[in-house]
Amino acid sequence: MPKVVDHEQRRRDIAEAVFRVIGERGMEGVSLRDVATEAGVSMGSVQHYFGTKEEMLRFALGYMRERAGVRFSAELGKLKNPSNRDHLRAILRTLLPTNSQSRQEATVSIAFFSISNGNKEFRRVLADGYSQLLAACRQQLANADLNGELQSGIDVDAEAATLFFATQGLIGPVLIGSVSTTRAMAVLDHQLDRIFVPV
Amino acid sequence: MPKVVDHEQRRRDIAEAVFRVIGERGMEGVSLRDVATEAGVSMGSVQHYFGTKEEMLRFALGYMRERAGVRFSAELGKLKNPSNRDHLRAILRTLLPTNSQSRQEATVSIAFFSISNGNKEFRRVLADGYSQLLAACRQQLANADLNGELQSGIDVDAEAATLFFATQGLIGPVLIGSVSTTRAMAVLDHQLDRIFVPV
Repeated sequence: MPKVVDHEQRRRDIAEAVFRVIGERGMEGVSLRDVATEAGVSMGSVQHYFGTKEEMLRFALGYMRERAGVRFSAELGKLKNPSNRDHLRAILRTLLPTNSQSRQEATVSIAFFSISNGNKEFRRVLADGYSQLLAACRQQLANADLNGELQSGIDVDAEAATLFFATQGLIGPVLIGSVSTTRAMAVLDHQLDRIFVPV
Repeated sequence: MPKVVDHEQRRRDIAEAVFRVIGERGMEGVSLRDVATEAGVSMGSVQHYFGTKEEMLRFALGYMRERAGVRFSAELGKLKNPSNRDHLRAILRTLLPTNSQSRQEATVSIAFFSISNGNKEFRRVLADGYSQLLAACRQQLANADLNGELQSGIDVDAEAATLFFATQGLIGPVLIGSVSTTRAMAVLDHQLDRIFVPV
């Protein structure tokens, strides 16, 4: 079904144009017209794929999560025989806006957050994203615990939450340059050093 | 100089209208016209106080920080003979969007964040806010350390950063209801229990 694939690719191209517009002018700049211009297609073409701006944004948000998922898999796939700690650290590091793609995702995510007040569906997708990533961090800590890699008395739930939310809280400061990636990772490494038994 | 006071109050009233518009329709809804309608004043009156939308937003961001500062002082002022730990915990709790005022400040702050990509001045004010609050957390931990209230081997800088950024990372999830305030405070209390010597 090549036609279907094409359709999906077109929608993704438009979503990418949405991301670029958000990056340049914020969510304010996002109109069907401006996105069409950015995507280099006609206004009618955008309207063919998405009836409304809301529909276009909903697709873009879902696609952003998908794209971030692919990026995570690629980053984690680069690790050679990772320990649970390596794996967990890589998840946290990949959450930080350290390159153009992750910076774009962080910017787009904050932009969606800023309009999620009045949109239950956006809130649901954003909350889903949090849960999934927190669960991934928790899983690595739980695996490490089973493997005897954690210091005694470590509360897996509480520590996974602290690591994950501290990373979330570092995204904004790293994005605007008020905290360097090195400093952000040092904060997280300090906690990992405390939680894990030295190798 | 009652005239000057009035001017300042008018500007604040308009800034409050900016906050309400952001809360209802996001940063997208903010035009001089819509803000004038929300503030119940004429468009000319808004233009008298702020020549441009940019100027209005710059004032609103500064005023938001001022207002948050007043809220912090009020919250911290309620504590009776607070220990350093009580004081630190109150700062972290006050950062969370737990009532209408703090929810509004979190929403407005995220909205400014979402347009700060292209605005150095907004980034500077946001970065300043982070530094100031992180320094306040650090100061409480340093006081506690001098007072022998911390467990041995606690790194004040690293732990202040973890507590502060974890709280920052919890603001979004608490705002959209994916994490409850109780759960958020439990995550932070777990760390405070670890860092402080039991009383």
